[in-house]
Amino acid sequence: MAENKFTPWEVEGDIDYDRLMTKFGIKPLDWKQLPEIFKPNVLFKRNKIFAHRDFNKISEAIENGKPFCMMTGLMPTGKFHIGHMILAKQFIEYQKAGAKLYIAVADIEAFQARGQSLEVSRKKAIEEYISNYIALGLKPENVEIYFQSNRSSDPVKANAYYRLQNLLARHITFNEFRATYGDVTPGKMTAGLLQAADMLHPQLKEFDGPIPTIVPVGTDQDPHIRLARDMARKIKEVKLNTFSSTYHVFVPGLGGGKMSSSDETSHIGLTESAKVVKKKVNKYAFSGGQVTLEEHRKLGGNPDVDISYQWLTFFEEDDAKLKQIYDSYKSGELLSGELKAILIEKLNTMLEVHQSNRKIAFKNLDQFIELTSDEKKFYNNYSEE
Amino acid sequence: MAENKFTPWEVEGDIDYDRLMTKFGIKPLDWKQLPEIFKPNVLFKRNKIFAHRDFNKISEAIENGKPFCMMTGLMPTGKFHIGHMILAKQFIEYQKAGAKLYIAVADIEAFQARGQSLEVSRKKAIEEYISNYIALGLKPENVEIYFQSNRSSDPVKANAYYRLQNLLARHITFNEFRATYGDVTPGKMTAGLLQAADMLHPQLKEFDGPIPTIVPVGTDQDPHIRLARDMARKIKEVKLNTFSSTYHVFVPGLGGGKMSSSDETSHIGLTESAKVVKKKVNKYAFSGGQVTLEEHRKLGGNPDVDISYQWLTFFEEDDAKLKQIYDSYKSGELLSGELKAILIEKLNTMLEVHQSNRKIAFKNLDQFIELTSDEKKFYNNYSEE
Repeated sequence: MAENKFTPWEVEGDIDYDRLMTKFGIKPLDWKQLPEIFKPNVLFKRNKIFAHRDFNKISEAIENGKPFCMMTGLMPTGKFHIGHMILAKQFIEYQKAGAKLYIAVADIEAFQARGQSLEVSRKKAIEEYISNYIALGLKPENVEIYFQSNRSSDPVKANAYYRLQNLLARHITFNEFRATYGDVTPGKMTAGLLQAADMLHPQLKEFDGPIPTIVPVGTDQDPHIRLARDMARKIKEVKLNTFSSTYHVFVPGLGGGKMSSSDETSHIGLTESAKVVKKKVNKYAFSGGQVTLEEHRKLGGNPDVDISYQWLTFFEEDDAKLKQIYDSYKSGELLSGELKAILIEKLNTMLEVHQSNRKIAFKNLDQFIELTSDEKKFYNNYSEE
Repeated sequence: MAENKFTPWEVEGDIDYDRLMTKFGIKPLDWKQLPEIFKPNVLFKRNKIFAHRDFNKISEAIENGKPFCMMTGLMPTGKFHIGHMILAKQFIEYQKAGAKLYIAVADIEAFQARGQSLEVSRKKAIEEYISNYIALGLKPENVEIYFQSNRSSDPVKANAYYRLQNLLARHITFNEFRATYGDVTPGKMTAGLLQAADMLHPQLKEFDGPIPTIVPVGTDQDPHIRLARDMARKIKEVKLNTFSSTYHVFVPGLGGGKMSSSDETSHIGLTESAKVVKKKVNKYAFSGGQVTLEEHRKLGGNPDVDISYQWLTFFEEDDAKLKQIYDSYKSGELLSGELKAILIEKLNTMLEVHQSNRKIAFKNLDQFIELTSDEKKFYNNYSEE
């Protein structure tokens, strides 16, 4: 199913994969070369994580039982939807493989780019992101979830993180910034430097030292990766290695375009009811079926453009079952409505478990982040609507 | 002696005082209106501190026994010379008047503007600045000396300081930066934001809250003051008041131009020997005397351009004695060589005390800043040459 990875609806805008691969040194990720622990994972197995830079450093660390870490960030604006699971599932997989996790809540970025207050960012980060991560299986051991605006309650770490931001500024030009961010402002530049510090600071001696770091991203994020790698190469004041990265495709929106938090018809939220899920899939999921029943039986459906099928490639873990769906849809045996029903069933089973896990997650929040006593009270009795 | 304040050698370059006063709202400082505690101070009394913004807030705080603070910074490049004493004497005066002092070591600025490493900045800050401050009378109570690169061992304070830097970035444009800093780079911009955070952060709730703050500067620093005041007015995420500032003249260089750390013939360093002081004053101090003894006796000297006399206006505290020197030099009774001898005597008496105080200062360093155990050992046995 590797061919799916270049379908236009899976990525935003016009990412030029060939250019990324040839000009910027991103390489295809070879499933056969992966550490055993990753092989059964749907995202690796089905080439959803399809490319990388320096992933060998991570493979070597895992195979030799050496420490490594995973760094990612979340922008606490908008609703957490099913597309966001792809990244969350990856870092949970890295946690299982022994990685120390660093998860940045990009509240300074949300402030600079969108004018969102730190208070709102904190609330959204907790209710939309962190609680979902926990429900998806994130464990409290060996993970640092932090806010850019409030890095650490350990002063040595807090000072070191912001010091890195300030030092990095010497190792970049305005033109390099513009090439990545377009029109920049002092605010966006500051947030960009902090993002680079996010990716690089786990390697500081005040954190984990220069161990291998993996930053899993969607392909559109590569310019940010390149910027941070460049700074890592140039800085002399602290010893930093360039880090590794992987690139994953996006879950397409229901209608076939990009999945978006702000477009209700494009996504399924993780807190939506079974009824809403059924309605959305039936109403909005782009179908690869034929117009009439007769034609469908005769010509068969096209799973390669059918969004319900595409979604199943992310969520149906059973290869045999997925192949059977593919074949029977293609042959015309399985109808579009039936295919949608399979997806609805799959999603609702998954979401029922998730929503039940979410209830427990709120009670365990303080194992992951420091809460004020008001927040503790509030989230201990938290219920959705 | 108020007329001295506009002599060209007392300031750098072409500062347009009228423009500062009219366009930017700086007002002359009226000695008669000052709190009693400041009135005997030579710098206030002789109009060396000649202008201000919002000094009334500080006067009111002192008169009502309310808390206030003083914020200043030092750029740890080059040698501490006699000209630097003017600022140090001011903040020691504020400390006596009850102010909490904040003193920033601008090591990030030295790094961005001069490429000086944080290690070198630390060493210079200690050996050239902090030790001299202590020798000049700074007390360890109620003072925070900190490095921009390592704000605080209190995590709440460290995070709050750098958070402010990051928030401020939204409230300034590149053009505003350029107007103050000339050609900017990402590094200089970052350092500029940190400098604004230096001036404003004492007012954060994590520090002293919105109490009156005085920032004493040389007139050339006003653009930086205006920039920080502008940001304070615009920021909504934290409650900040604009702060107060005073403006002082500079001690002129020996030759009549600007005093400079890098020009040995222009300054007297605080660790220089009596012999060197004597030689420098005799050789380099610009004289207002006549060319021949006869002419001098007949026409008299000109104390208003004589650097030895100008220096005495900073260092000879006895008004009557100073007036007597002025009159007898002007009348031709006092010769240039005799005037120089008075200054040499004054300086060497002052420096002898200072150098003896400096020896003790190194033993007390750790009451002012946190030292590593290696530094403790090193500075406990520290001796100049």
